[in-house]
Amino acid sequence: MKEIHISSKQRNQMIDITTDVQHLVSEEKITDGFVIVYVPHTTAGITINEGADPAVQQDIIKALQRLIPEVNSYDHEEGNSDAHIKASLLSSSVTVLIDNGKLVLGTWQHIFFYEGDGPRNRMVYIHTTKNR
Amino acid sequence: MKEIHISSKQRNQMIDITTDVQHLVSEEKITDGFVIVYVPHTTAGITINEGADPAVQQDIIKALQRLIPEVNSYDHEEGNSDAHIKASLLSSSVTVLIDNGKLVLGTWQHIFFYEGDGPRNRMVYIHTTKNR
Amino acid sequence: MKEIHISSKQRNQMIDITTDVQHLVSEEKITDGFVIVYVPHTTAGITINEGADPAVQQDIIKALQRLIPEVNSYDHEEGNSDAHIKASLLSSSVTVLIDNGKLVLGTWQHIFFYEGDGPRNRMVYIHTTKNR
Repeated sequence: MKEIHISSKQRNQMIDITTDVQHLVSEEKITDGFVIVYVPHTTAGITINEGADPAVQQDIIKALQRLIPEVNSYDHEEGNSDAHIKASLLSSSVTVLIDNGKLVLGTWQHIFFYEGDGPRNRMVYIHTTKNR
Repeated sequence: MKEIHISSKQRNQMIDITTDVQHLVSEEKITDGFVIVYVPHTTAGITINEGADPAVQQDIIKALQRLIPEVNSYDHEEGNSDAHIKASLLSSSVTVLIDNGKLVLGTWQHIFFYEGDGPRNRMVYIHTTKNR
Repeated sequence: MKEIHISSKQRNQMIDITTDVQHLVSEEKITDGFVIVYVPHTTAGITINEGADPAVQQDIIKALQRLIPEVNSYDHEEGNSDAHIKASLLSSSVTVLIDNGKLVLGTWQHIFFYEGDGPRNRMVYIHTTKNR
């Protein structure tokens, strides 16, 4: 298991970690396998989406803010219930296939850490399985 | 493959199954691997979120109820369309890493079965993969 | 890694690919394992839900349209921001267990490709892992 360390700068932020994941995967010399990218936090998540136009990230962040407002009549009193809810709507992990040492991503796909309660220091765990 | 049996008590309920998953994983003597926790139902889901303050669970349940009302102009006539939609917004499985026999969860992370159409008797499948 | 090719017919559509996935899995002669079903697109997703009553699919499509309108004040100017957001709310992959060559699905569970920006030609990657 390997780790990626992230310092988020904003309360809501999508941080592209594709290069970091690819770098750690490359060290493993995998012909055929997959990587589990896991977020051990409950006010952050992970998602795969378009990396070319940053406007897509803004639209995702804004849509989540509209659906799950930061201020609402929440029971949890730490002021970050919205981030907990977003974490469950996104996911705590993504799985990406590996072929000849490379992540098998679509043309536009990048892997994003979703920060919902930043700025914070965060971690992502990377775990590869080698089928061949 | 192993099973966890669950009896939900309410229509919408988050049930902490972390201890059950850990118990089944411990029997496998895994140094390095992961567990797939799979829900074979279409009106229930699974999610990882904070387990310390029960208010977080209430906020997740209420936010999903606000976004996906139980009563609406649904086409499916069994009165549980909201639960089907929530099942797709959450997920049918989570994957958690295992290190020296222990689930690799963040400090606040617990694994929750999400009941969307209870009370019912439910099942969760547990499948481990041993890398070492 | 194997591929399923899909031609969607509508802008928003759920396409049942269970039979295709089962067909490719059957060729692998797996006693115990799992399959990763991966979508390499950023305006489409994948989800497991009820396959018996097509009204459930309609309710899921309509609920997502209500929550994430096609037309809104989006920053991304290609007219498909809603599809990108839906892709992140659903998921880019599902994992399904395999027992004696068969997908371990619940009674009502089918695997659906979710088209959010069709009609288009699409692909799904199928990757199996054999534990025994």
